[in-house]
This record gives sequence, structure tokens and C-alpha cells, in this order.
Amino acid sequence: MSTGPRLVEVRQNVLKQNDLLARALRRRFRAAGVYVVSLVSSPGAGKTTFLEKTLSLLRRGRGLRVAALVGDLATDNDAARLARAGVPVRQITTGTVCHLDAEMVGRALEGWDLAVLDILFIENVGNLVCPALFDLGEAVRIVLASVTEGADKPAKYPHMFSRADVVLVSKTDLLPYVDFDVGRHAADVRQLSPGARLMQVSAVTGDGMQAWYDWLQLSLPG
Amino acid sequence: MSTGPRLVEVRQNVLKQNDLLARALRRRFRAAGVYVVSLVSSPGAGKTTFLEKTLSLLRRGRGLRVAALVGDLATDNDAARLARAGVPVRQITTGTVCHLDAEMVGRALEGWDLAVLDILFIENVGNLVCPALFDLGEAVRIVLASVTEGADKPAKYPHMFSRADVVLVSKTDLLPYVDFDVGRHAADVRQLSPGARLMQVSAVTGDGMQAWYDWLQLSLPG
Repeated sequence: MSTGPRLVEVRQNVLKQNDLLARALRRRFRAAGVYVVSLVSSPGAGKTTFLEKTLSLLRRGRGLRVAALVGDLATDNDAARLARAGVPVRQITTGTVCHLDAEMVGRALEGWDLAVLDILFIENVGNLVCPALFDLGEAVRIVLASVTEGADKPAKYPHMFSRADVVLVSKTDLLPYVDFDVGRHAADVRQLSPGARLMQVSAVTGDGMQAWYDWLQLSLPG
Repeated sequence: MSTGPRLVEVRQNVLKQNDLLARALRRRFRAAGVYVVSLVSSPGAGKTTFLEKTLSLLRRGRGLRVAALVGDLATDNDAARLARAGVPVRQITTGTVCHLDAEMVGRALEGWDLAVLDILFIENVGNLVCPALFDLGEAVRIVLASVTEGADKPAKYPHMFSRADVVLVSKTDLLPYVDFDVGRHAADVRQLSPGARLMQVSAVTGDGMQAWYDWLQLSLPG
């Protein structure tokens, strides 16, 4: 296929451009004093439910000023769900594009005063492949891995897991009903991203959520 | 981002090239009398377990000559699992590429006598976005949708569901433990792909699998 090499070249240019824009975003976030946390996972791993609970608790329970950007191919369902937490939410609709990039994030932030925020969450498109290579200027990247997906996903999607700062094993309330080898999953995550923090959460039962809030609060700069 | 329009143009060329190659593959499959079934889903929706049972049953129980091509970013775990069914299996490793394309399929088939096969399955990379636009020359495209992912996935990934010939609602053994609105899911699938066949299966309990084998066998040409 003669278009192959040209596509690779264009992709490399796109990634290089993205890295430059992400670096500028990161400087901007630091200057504004906002801690930016990105979330990525397979479709249906529970990002939105998890984020809805997190936004609500951080605002009401811990008095933090939080906001979210939400990426989706279509619909603003997730943005509508997150807005119920009573925090500012903006939607990024990507159409057929399989990931967010730094330019989309920059555009979505236009006119937003970041200095009034403590934490900005960025929920990526549900996809374990494409978002891996695109830096969004975040301080920390979180990969949600649902127990229903099986323990083999780190080995099968190594680019994503090797770039994770935190791996949240989600839907742990379903552990009794599925075949998920917690030890194998943890070992594979540690091999791909030796410094990554591993936590288990269930947004449904609340198990592990306090430990997550504590970890996040302790990670905030200053 | 100045690379934007150029990327779109290159992408359109890639899709156009892919369509030509897929058309040639489809002619080749028809001429060889092999029925080609592609499978796509989110990571961890159960494609491999489902396919493992299907290959084994079709070969042993119904005397069909079946084979499989398996796409993955990394590892040949799935190909090794499928080979246990005692049928020919070939692996396509895509690296960072988020989907199979017709060229990869054509290359993987080199030296393979398709005329001795009744059904060839192609298991795509686990991804609800990128594989949507790439025709692989298949006769029928199957989307697996796990009940653990939630009923909102058709609306959120419309490109994939609108191109489905069959939607298999998988992991129905977990229905008692998750919040999955079967009616809403079915209605959204019907709106996106009015002719699509909807079936429910659990590869773990075997529920719905006989109906799936029957449907597949009745779909075979000739």
C-alpha cells in the first residue's frame, strides 16, 4: 500500500506537534496552579461513574474546586452526567477521531479561568490504543482497568499501560462473578510501568474510594 | 495545527485504498467459497472466549472446516488460545496500529488455501473506534457488546454499531449483577443499524450459543 510510509510520516509530525502543544499546556496548568488528571480506559470500564462520584465528593466533602473536560465521539451524555455533581464541565466531541489531543484540550479551555481551580479532570475517549501516544499536558495519567475485561489487558495493550502513572482496577464489586487474576494483572502492570501506583476501587459499593481521594489530595502540589 | 487537513487527506486516501483491497479480498473469498465473519468489540468484551467455543463446536459438533485470523497490538496469547480448538489460526500483530486493514488480512492469508475452508473468522483489535471504517472483505461483521460495558455504548460509538450486521450481547451471565438496560440497548442498536440481527450469548454458561451456531450455519451460502 503506497500510502503506508506517508501515513507514518504524517503521524510522526502530528505527534511532534502534539508534544509541543502539550508542553505549553503543562506550563500553563502549572502557572495557574491547577493539577490536571487525565483518565483513560476501554469503553465501559466505569470512567464516568467513577468521575461523577469523585467530583461530587471532592467538592462537597473536601471543599476542593474541581472541573472536568469530557471527550466522546458522539453525544454529550457523559458531560450531562458529570454536571450533576455541580461542577463546571465541558464536552469535547471528536467525531471519528479516536482520542483527545492537546489542541482539542487547549480549544476547550478557551475563556476558562484555570486559576480558580484546584483540580481539572480530563476524561478521554474510551479506547486503550490511540490515546496512549497523545500527551495532554496532564500532571498524572490514570488508566482504569475493569475486572470484567480480564487480567490480560496490560500485556495486550502495553503502550497504554506503560504510560500509566496510576492504574485503578475498577468494578471490584464484580470480582466474585468473573475470572480475574489480581496477582497476574498487578505483576504485568509493574513490569510495564514500574513506578505506577495500583489501587482497587468500586464506585458502586464505594470500596477503595476513600483511599483514592486521600492519595489524590496528598498528590496536590503546595 | 497545520498538519490537520493533511492528515485528513492522507486518511481519506488510506480508506480509499483499503476499500479497493477489501473489494478484491471479497471477490477472492467468494471465488474460494469461504464465508468470512469478522468480530470486533471493546477490549475484554469476550471475543476470544466466544470464538474459542465457536471454533471448537463448529469443527467437532457440526463438521465444518473453520479457521481464524487474530489481530492484536502485542502478544500472540489469543492465537495460542484459539489454536487449542484444533483449527488453523494465524496472528496479525499490529504494533501501535489501532485496527486491522485489508492489506494486513491479505498478507496474513499468503500461502493459505482458502478453498478448503467453510468459514474464516477474523478477530479484530479490541477497539470500538478505529476498526469501524476499515472494510476487511468480510461477508458479515459482528459487534460483541458486553453487558458490563453499559447500555449506552451504541449511542456513544455510533460509527461501529451502524456498520454491524449482527450485535451479540455478551456476558449475559453477569446481567444479575450489573445495571444494563436491555431494551434501551436494543432500541439504540435498531436505530443505528435497522437490519442488524440481535442475539444474547454467554460463552461461560453456554446460553444462546446454540442459537448463534444455528444462525451462522443457516447463513452459509449454498
